[in-house]
Amino acid sequence: MAENIGGMIALLLEYDGGSYGGWQYQENSPTVQGELEKACRWLYPAPVRLRGASRTDAGVHARGQVAILPPPPSLPPEKLPGALNWHLPPDIRVVRAYAVPGNFHPVTWARGKIYRYFIRLGRPAPAIGAGYCWTLPGELDGAAMNLAAAACIGRKDFASFQGAGSPVRDTTRTLRHLYCRRRGDWLAITCVGDGFLYNMVRILVGTLVEVGRGKLRPLELEAILAARDRVAAGPTAPARGLFLEKVLYRPSLDSYTRL
Amino acid sequence: MAENIGGMIALLLEYDGGSYGGWQYQENSPTVQGELEKACRWLYPAPVRLRGASRTDAGVHARGQVAILPPPPSLPPEKLPGALNWHLPPDIRVVRAYAVPGNFHPVTWARGKIYRYFIRLGRPAPAIGAGYCWTLPGELDGAAMNLAAAACIGRKDFASFQGAGSPVRDTTRTLRHLYCRRRGDWLAITCVGDGFLYNMVRILVGTLVEVGRGKLRPLELEAILAARDRVAAGPTAPARGLFLEKVLYRPSLDSYTRL
Repeated sequence: MAENIGGMIALLLEYDGGSYGGWQYQENSPTVQGELEKACRWLYPAPVRLRGASRTDAGVHARGQVAILPPPPSLPPEKLPGALNWHLPPDIRVVRAYAVPGNFHPVTWARGKIYRYFIRLGRPAPAIGAGYCWTLPGELDGAAMNLAAAACIGRKDFASFQGAGSPVRDTTRTLRHLYCRRRGDWLAITCVGDGFLYNMVRILVGTLVEVGRGKLRPLELEAILAARDRVAAGPTAPARGLFLEKVLYRPSLDSYTRL
Repeated sequence: MAENIGGMIALLLEYDGGSYGGWQYQENSPTVQGELEKACRWLYPAPVRLRGASRTDAGVHARGQVAILPPPPSLPPEKLPGALNWHLPPDIRVVRAYAVPGNFHPVTWARGKIYRYFIRLGRPAPAIGAGYCWTLPGELDGAAMNLAAAACIGRKDFASFQGAGSPVRDTTRTLRHLYCRRRGDWLAITCVGDGFLYNMVRILVGTLVEVGRGKLRPLELEAILAARDRVAAGPTAPARGLFLEKVLYRPSLDSYTRL
């Protein structure tokens, strides 16, 4: 621990969001942050408040959430992942931990995020893994979807893609990558950006699906963006198909000492 | 329906066994058969008893279970899959239905079954899909496991691989295929045979894992088979990694009219 005096610990987290009311602590509903803070009660003398990189919504999954907490006072820090996993429910796992500087901030230091959304085509919906995808009947035109996706890439005003709930004034974001890849009955949509508005990825996916169904033309995306109005875009895709894959830092988390 | 007078309907079923006490109806515990028979109450005037091809255990999943029931009296039979899915919980799905002869028996007509078992190597266990695999720390020697697997193939007495519970007198079965395939951190064990004793696949997997860990040598499989004693074999692998992939019929189900 000598090299981490005054430092913090960054946890790399994987979770199945299906049973949780999202990341953020809530008084009356189980949340991922709440479960982690409950597990910390076994390892810290006082309540610990974790700081997460992304406030994932109810039902959204994560393979690469990042959260920061202080080192445990009476436990070697390298024992923290195993000790937390011991006390956590099996659908939340600490994958790795890193010793990061004391001023490391998981939100403001993040340069971007990678999300992935999974769509399964055809009926019936799968019984196995039903909680990890959005099942749609019929076909989707992937080429049209990728044409529409290309229109969203770049530094743009995404006001039309901001869900009701927690509106922000500055709705300009940079979308670096938005691409649909088909494999058999599966469609994976990868989305990379510097930051995202509330529900932005799910509204982008819902809008691309409207294009894939032929209800919107790819060229209409320009007008939807220009409208700066939520009603111009498509519906919000269900949470269960969405995965927070990675939070991007520079230097990357792997450049810090792994505990 | 003209071509199926006096005929029956075969359902191809997929289910996530995680929430169920197995296939077979039980008075006080939710089971897959029980949920299907409950769904049938909406579509049949009298209680229906389904006949399944395999009595999968509590927690075991299926992608290819087969069950037989009479055609619904007041519904076109091609509407049955959709109608059942409407009333079934989302972790049980009717994938397809076939019009089969009235004397079709899902157990005695079955020529064999294909099972697959998924092992994930490394720690921590995955949070996403934790209910679909057995997670093991450390490494497994796949070559040794396949050497041991080869010793089990053929027509043999599998008394050592019969779980306590529902013993049968004739413990001779033909194992046609038993093979471990590695992809990254995943190991998939495929098992094909004409019939299986109670817990046989899970005990075979548990024994192969002992070989993979170096606790048993591949050559010891001959002696384990010869012992005809459950204690000679390895432990029973957990149910959550096991999938009933397919029940084999000759002619195949696909040779019948698909509804």
